[in-house]
Amino acid sequence: MRAETVSVGTELLLGQIVDTNAAALATVLAECGLAQTHRQTVGDNLSRLTAALREALARAEVVVTIGGLGPTADDLTRDGIAAALGDTLVEDPAVVEHLRAQFEKRRIPWVDSIRRQALRPTCARIVSNPNGSAPGLVCERDGKTVIALPGPRNEFVPMLEGPVRDELLRLGGGSAIVSRVLKVVGIGESMVEEKLGDLMAGDDPTLAPYAKTGEVHLRLTTRASSPEQAAARLDPLAAAVRARLGDAVYGEGDDTLESALVSLLRGTNQTVAFAESCTGGGAMRRLTSVPGSSDVLVGGWVTYADEAKSSWLGVSAETLREHGAVSAECAAEMAEGARSRADTTYGVSVTGVAGPGGGTEEKPVGLVFVGLASPGITETHRFLFPGGREAVRERSVQAALAALRAAALGDRSRG
Amino acid sequence: MRAETVSVGTELLLGQIVDTNAAALATVLAECGLAQTHRQTVGDNLSRLTAALREALARAEVVVTIGGLGPTADDLTRDGIAAALGDTLVEDPAVVEHLRAQFEKRRIPWVDSIRRQALRPTCARIVSNPNGSAPGLVCERDGKTVIALPGPRNEFVPMLEGPVRDELLRLGGGSAIVSRVLKVVGIGESMVEEKLGDLMAGDDPTLAPYAKTGEVHLRLTTRASSPEQAAARLDPLAAAVRARLGDAVYGEGDDTLESALVSLLRGTNQTVAFAESCTGGGAMRRLTSVPGSSDVLVGGWVTYADEAKSSWLGVSAETLREHGAVSAECAAEMAEGARSRADTTYGVSVTGVAGPGGGTEEKPVGLVFVGLASPGITETHRFLFPGGREAVRERSVQAALAALRAAALGDRSRG
Repeated sequence: MRAETVSVGTELLLGQIVDTNAAALATVLAECGLAQTHRQTVGDNLSRLTAALREALARAEVVVTIGGLGPTADDLTRDGIAAALGDTLVEDPAVVEHLRAQFEKRRIPWVDSIRRQALRPTCARIVSNPNGSAPGLVCERDGKTVIALPGPRNEFVPMLEGPVRDELLRLGGGSAIVSRVLKVVGIGESMVEEKLGDLMAGDDPTLAPYAKTGEVHLRLTTRASSPEQAAARLDPLAAAVRARLGDAVYGEGDDTLESALVSLLRGTNQTVAFAESCTGGGAMRRLTSVPGSSDVLVGGWVTYADEAKSSWLGVSAETLREHGAVSAECAAEMAEGARSRADTTYGVSVTGVAGPGGGTEEKPVGLVFVGLASPGITETHRFLFPGGREAVRERSVQAALAALRAAALGDRSRG
Repeated sequence: MRAETVSVGTELLLGQIVDTNAAALATVLAECGLAQTHRQTVGDNLSRLTAALREALARAEVVVTIGGLGPTADDLTRDGIAAALGDTLVEDPAVVEHLRAQFEKRRIPWVDSIRRQALRPTCARIVSNPNGSAPGLVCERDGKTVIALPGPRNEFVPMLEGPVRDELLRLGGGSAIVSRVLKVVGIGESMVEEKLGDLMAGDDPTLAPYAKTGEVHLRLTTRASSPEQAAARLDPLAAAVRARLGDAVYGEGDDTLESALVSLLRGTNQTVAFAESCTGGGAMRRLTSVPGSSDVLVGGWVTYADEAKSSWLGVSAETLREHGAVSAECAAEMAEGARSRADTTYGVSVTGVAGPGGGTEEKPVGLVFVGLASPGITETHRFLFPGGREAVRERSVQAALAALRAAALGDRSRG
């Protein structure tokens, strides 16, 4: 079954907003087994909107509109759908009632123009909108279905992911594409492919790797007609991946490296302090984005000037003179200084040349050292990252968090 | 003159990528005076692509395609344009030459399939692509113009903003919409409107405010046929805005609050250190995103635990006991501790409840104190920010940088 999208709004044609709703809808259409071959965007103009809907209905069985359901005179999607389907608009008393109740609850004075939002083609069913006043519509006539959704993202997405996904699933024949994402850190994409090569050759479920900054995400995908069927197909594959990659899988779905790290450290009663130079606090900022990170992070230092490295962290004048601030030696002393001063299980340091200036032949832009002081041992890692200043800083933060995770995992297994 | 866009790519219809190129193009079309009334997206399918182009050419004088110019068999935009215009494809010898030179330079072995990228309709001119192998095309026939651009963003944007903008400007009649953006911090949107109300009533140039996180951006816009004409219209308005808002205007265009702050401190030989709690290093990270920020930032502390606040920064046990870590008193001592230990002109502190947990009736989520220790005086600011954890942290960072700027400006004027 074919589906098309018609996005409505002059602001889209002027480039004032990016049509992220259309991309979200496209994903759901594909997941529900509906083949999208065409997408249109039109402005707030009734004749052009009606023509676009007629074209879409001539090609596809299912048409989804986005936007144009507001209460003002330039919100014309209801009118366009009625015209394209050869239907007329009627006022839905239940919607009027609901709108009145909403206005009373919010203590906003009633304006009669809002009744436009209670109009629907006679063939339409109402889809309730928990986050706004414009209801959605499902219009079925002559074997064609037009689904109308409001444009504001916080209204659109919950409706799409809730009742509209069910409608589309039904229209698509009842089986949906279902995915799980496993997240991997500490080994590169080619090593992942080497370890999982035969599993990646499978047709259903499929297993595909996506390289992210310092991570690899593995998407497991199948087609299933129920959550149980999806689990039955994806769970064995996920278990096989975890068995082969072990601790390199740090999480799944919405997990982030920082949230996994906070959980790991908290679960083993371990703490950390940081000493950051070129990342300027970025590693600590990322860890503290996790609620409850205060259980594991005492704090740390941003030592941008050499003087700060020596007087706050105890990096020796000799190290700075002989090896410079961007060196394994300095990274080690920074990490040890942070660990001893904060009295934590771990001290993590980052020092490097983020650029664009400051690079030399010996120490080029992108050269970064990560130090990790653990109980009884201090290690350092050397990196040469590609990219501009922000890319180098982002990769450095990722490397520091990955090094900390590896150490915390090692200590757990030894403990 | 009317224009339409046809975006080409099955990945768009599957929702795998968001069509940000189409939005960027829409902005340029509007700026060049071309009225866009319709936009289409089609997959990598020759008959559907040709049909979409024919529809667009029936409605508009100018059609711009995005994507489908690669070397593989599913890159069909060249073929579609030729079919829709009733033209045929020829190989362009200069493009073949250029491709061969590129391959040699990059030491990649030549593959003959790449010659597809040298095909063009006979009516087409070549638009060079400095960042990729696929050239763009400008095809003019029977009073219609089709412009073809490659899809990868790093290739698309420079071509759009360079030679293609000139083509579109010519097609639009030579006068373009030109904007300047002045950036304001330290006064709210309603105060800006009060001070600039009469200037905002103007028709040409127009002046419109946009509220950002802790800032207001003012967009000055006119229509002009040359940079000189644009300057003649926008410069007096910009001068009037600056005269009324004074130092609240921190910059223009690509300037950021942090880049303006680094310039201000560097120009007055002033330095700063930070003491961050709830922002976890976010203020320092933002300042250090500016190349050369090491001239003004010595470094600082992330004191997440109370113990770190007292032992690293000297916050008194009494202050923590009597007022708590989230208090004006603690913010003041953190800022003073940072300033004295780092021996800088300023010490800036942030302490607050970022949430989602940790709020109380007396100290709810969103309560944030910013401390600013200057030569001879320490001030604190109290905020109650709305929003979730990341919103509170972002607003707190902005408030800290704004407070630092205000102090640095004050000292400059007194100095």
